Amino acid sequence: MRNVSVIGTGMTKFGKHEASVKSLALAACREALLEAGSPKVDAIYVGNFLGGLLSGQEIIGSILAKELGLGPIPATKMEGACASGGIAFRHAYHMIASGVHETVLVVGVEKMTQAPTNVVTQAINSAMDNDSNEGISGLTFPGFFGVVANRYMYEYGAGEEHLAMVSLKNREYAMNNPKAQFRKETSLEEIMHARPITAPLGLFHCSPITDGAAAVVITSRDEGVKVISSSQASGPPLMQDIPDLLSIGAIQESARQAYSQAGVGPNDIDVAELHDCFAMTEILAIEDLGFFEKGTGWKAIESGLTKQGGKVPINTSGGLISRGHPIGATGIAQIVQIVNQLQGRAVNQVEGARIGLAQNLGGTGAYSTVHIFEGKGL
Amino acid sequence: MRNVSVIGTGMTKFGKHEASVKSLALAACREALLEAGSPKVDAIYVGNFLGGLLSGQEIIGSILAKELGLGPIPATKMEGACASGGIAFRHAYHMIASGVHETVLVVGVEKMTQAPTNVVTQAINSAMDNDSNEGISGLTFPGFFGVVANRYMYEYGAGEEHLAMVSLKNREYAMNNPKAQFRKETSLEEIMHARPITAPLGLFHCSPITDGAAAVVITSRDEGVKVISSSQASGPPLMQDIPDLLSIGAIQESARQAYSQAGVGPNDIDVAELHDCFAMTEILAIEDLGFFEKGTGWKAIESGLTKQGGKVPINTSGGLISRGHPIGATGIAQIVQIVNQLQGRAVNQVEGARIGLAQNLGGTGAYSTVHIFEGKGL
Repeated sequence: MRNVSVIGTGMTKFGKHEASVKSLALAACREALLEAGSPKVDAIYVGNFLGGLLSGQEIIGSILAKELGLGPIPATKMEGACASGGIAFRHAYHMIASGVHETVLVVGVEKMTQAPTNVVTQAINSAMDNDSNEGISGLTFPGFFGVVANRYMYEYGAGEEHLAMVSLKNREYAMNNPKAQFRKETSLEEIMHARPITAPLGLFHCSPITDGAAAVVITSRDEGVKVISSSQASGPPLMQDIPDLLSIGAIQESARQAYSQAGVGPNDIDVAELHDCFAMTEILAIEDLGFFEKGTGWKAIESGLTKQGGKVPINTSGGLISRGHPIGATGIAQIVQIVNQLQGRAVNQVEGARIGLAQNLGGTGAYSTVHIFEGKGL
Repeated sequence: MRNVSVIGTGMTKFGKHEASVKSLALAACREALLEAGSPKVDAIYVGNFLGGLLSGQEIIGSILAKELGLGPIPATKMEGACASGGIAFRHAYHMIASGVHETVLVVGVEKMTQAPTNVVTQAINSAMDNDSNEGISGLTFPGFFGVVANRYMYEYGAGEEHLAMVSLKNREYAMNNPKAQFRKETSLEEIMHARPITAPLGLFHCSPITDGAAAVVITSRDEGVKVISSSQASGPPLMQDIPDLLSIGAIQESARQAYSQAGVGPNDIDVAELHDCFAMTEILAIEDLGFFEKGTGWKAIESGLTKQGGKVPINTSGGLISRGHPIGATGIAQIVQIVNQLQGRAVNQVEGARIGLAQNLGGTGAYSTVHIFEGKGL
């Protein structure tokens, strides 16, 4: 397997845009290509989930190849719900690692704000197994993670304030991120008294509906930030089949493989972006990634161990909750932030960060990808 | 690069089904896995185009991994409009060729007949670049290929009867295929006088709306039918950007790469399945694949060179026109037919077939994949 390095990153502001899914993707691609020095590109991979359902737009790969003037190169869209970006990156990585391509453009994109909220909710429910009654009888993703949060608090003694601490931390990070959707200062008080969505999850505990795109250029040349592992795992897409609501098996499995390939462990990770689609999910993820023991994530948060200066700063971009969650773009935006951290030029820069991790989740645990990156040290 | 072989094939009947997209895919997967001897599977790739738009069902990869009891293996859906199946197969191929996986299940699936025709037409138009006025102002895929057919007849002197000969040949093949959607005997007369869709294309010249699934199991073991090349190319997704309406650049480029990798030329191909979404497309494809000179495909058809006993029998399954076109499944169904041909057990078996080719198209030429297979000789 050959080396794979990230040599360019690009990203639109996340939030509400008038621009189409194509325009958003193009903006991020152009920025990443310029930063990479406009290399010859051999293939393009696209992470996108709802282009068909919300914009009537598929074949985004071919459209981008044409608009960017890249010639008849292979172009492929990957779908794995909210993990679409991570999955697209993984395949681009393997096509370079195996010698099929030299340089690949990977872009994640989603356009969601044009549709009414109930239409978006229905579209997102396509990430459930709908040959079941779960979605049909009213289960939604906030509903699922609300149940999980109740169970977590019951089992491990966490309180609602710990969920709020996750949201507050991510909002504080987002305040410094000019590309984040939500940058207004907030307080623990405000978060805890916000409109309930699926109790105990309130408005500030849930990732929003967002438009945006993020892109990276990766290459076999040994420069930039190195990808030292790439993994992808699946888990049961139905709530009824999940053996333990307080562990996400796909995260655990993808983490196990990623650490093994990279030859590092959770204690080696200097900075991480992970999939806080809800505040509760961040707590599960810091446990399932091995940063903290199962059942103790809330204590780590309380102790500030996931903030700058703590054991492992988490979601320094603001995370899905505050940076925003344009679904197909999220996995790539996480990678952009980690790469920028390892380059020493990130918002909320973690001093001395050398090894970073990005974890992207799909559904209630239907998919997870983990990518680990190594910078040259600062 | 390691050897890659096909060791199992499975396919539902193509036509109208009550079954869901999940049930259809499972049926094809189970057949292919049984035929392959129920091997340990390391990953699953899914080709699907309209699961979200027509069934509200995404995350098909994860759903199948769970239902088939395959554990937390990576599962990925690929979308490239009508080339989704071929694109999924190509990535599965590369993951084995490069040593990432040993054995991979690839399934293509589509469920279309539950929606009214106008809804399906609208959904299929998501395979255009809709940041343009082409689709919005009324262009459809039958419309595009109708224009092409008129131009082809004008440039090269072909007549409507040559379009009809393609449809008749494919119907005659389909009559012997128990899995084909249309098996009723027909005549040149009936085809030529059928209801016009987009003149000169009539009802029998157009692929239908179809439900169905097809699956293959591929492995690094040197047994079964060998995949000797795999290629994928893109082309302009807008009609306004196509430099020559009578050539499909993506087919030409994917063919060039595939022949080069396999070390064979068009004259070495004993049997081929190609993307006859319309009778006109088959004529373009036999030219763009190099079987016949540009502008002479219609003469080859008239001379019977694409029938059994001719230079290169084309679409012995009945093709998209008569076997049916469940969009995401088509690319895999083509591969099933070619593999079965090289195993000597196909419907409309071509005697002595040793090298076969499958070509899968997306949009008006937005994507093309070509795969070439080698059997042990019969």
